Amino acid sequence: MALEPIMIFPEHQQQSNDHILNARVRLATESDVPFINKLIHKMAEYYNLAHECEDTETSLFAALFNSKHQPLSNPFSSTVSVFLIEVSPTALPVPPHQNCRAIDLAGHKFEPDTIHKTVHVNHLINDPEESLFRTEKGTIIAGFVIFFSSYSTFLTKPGIHMEDLFVRKGYRGMGFGKLLMKAVANLTVRLGYARMEWTVITWNVDSHRFYEKLGAHILKDWRIFRLDGDSLLSFGQLNN
Amino acid sequence: MALEPIMIFPEHQQQSNDHILNARVRLATESDVPFINKLIHKMAEYYNLAHECEDTETSLFAALFNSKHQPLSNPFSSTVSVFLIEVSPTALPVPPHQNCRAIDLAGHKFEPDTIHKTVHVNHLINDPEESLFRTEKGTIIAGFVIFFSSYSTFLTKPGIHMEDLFVRKGYRGMGFGKLLMKAVANLTVRLGYARMEWTVITWNVDSHRFYEKLGAHILKDWRIFRLDGDSLLSFGQLNN
Repeated sequence: MALEPIMIFPEHQQQSNDHILNARVRLATESDVPFINKLIHKMAEYYNLAHECEDTETSLFAALFNSKHQPLSNPFSSTVSVFLIEVSPTALPVPPHQNCRAIDLAGHKFEPDTIHKTVHVNHLINDPEESLFRTEKGTIIAGFVIFFSSYSTFLTKPGIHMEDLFVRKGYRGMGFGKLLMKAVANLTVRLGYARMEWTVITWNVDSHRFYEKLGAHILKDWRIFRLDGDSLLSFGQLNN
Repeated sequence: MALEPIMIFPEHQQQSNDHILNARVRLATESDVPFINKLIHKMAEYYNLAHECEDTETSLFAALFNSKHQPLSNPFSSTVSVFLIEVSPTALPVPPHQNCRAIDLAGHKFEPDTIHKTVHVNHLINDPEESLFRTEKGTIIAGFVIFFSSYSTFLTKPGIHMEDLFVRKGYRGMGFGKLLMKAVANLTVRLGYARMEWTVITWNVDSHRFYEKLGAHILKDWRIFRLDGDSLLSFGQLNN
């Protein structure tokens, strides 16, 4: 009896929609700001928080890149960074020049890694927003992670706080969220930093399981306090 | 009947131990690093976490001041800052030169405020560690707050994360913790930042009440996830 190839190599089964997607995680550059702005608005829609989203290209550019031009005497300048994931059905073009030298805790300079992954997709990707997220070089921006450096007093070491991570509809279930997190973890390790942290809503138990599988653990005895709005303005006055 | 002065002005009642203490919150300078190092170790003892405390003067100096000397092309440099509270029974000397220009979100430069408070104390202050915390100018370092800038994606604005706050035994109950927090809140407002946040252990209900009185609120639906140690090293590898 002739063996059916489909029985021997089910993972190689060829269907009409089978194709590969080349994916890459790289640091965002100044020309990516319009894409990041649109990703943030898509994320706000996803969380039903579009009304809270005050993001603009101008404020985003200032947050991501202005602090790099500020004088070094300002210890409060915010150092926010973004990794993007971009995809292409064809070979990915040369990534844009990062102009970024990170420095680890031992003082050594290095360039953050660009991470590649090839994904086999057996369905047509439905991306009605593709034209909004197409770069000059023809790649499609599929998601992002935004993060900043934190600090542990007892360890006297910085860490990285992952503020938000988002993968656009149409590109979910392909491991891109995990790949973005891996890029941040890789940078954390290369910098010599102590830890990576992020916050999670209590009821999103599926995400808790996902993070636990990666080796992360929940700090169940800790809560976050926030002071903002009028209360912050009032308490921040020196004359009361 | 002659009124007893003690009945009319009970708050002015003079006892043998009555005295005033001049307190000041100011930004830490490079020469304060040995004091901050000792404060962190005292705080670790207070939390029974002395075994976890890896702080040294060298690592602390690097965290607080090295990032200010790093090239601007490094977007990951940590920007940790410290406010100290120092006290003196006599008039406080001129504060050390801060060499610090903060820049608010509108691009205006300013020098962070130094905050003064005069406290009436009706007991002898018991400070067996006074000699360890006496500055060259004769003031006594009584506590500190350490903080770094955070970021809100939806607001596209930085915030300030208060990492640790500690007031030494002997100087508690005088409002110094609140004064340190006020200094951070004042800086947050002057920078034009959106919020101030910090974490609190669940069982410390007294501190929750204290923070709520200041106008802060708990984010009861949020938890922190952490990835560190071997799990971070493993997940941060690109080849697995």
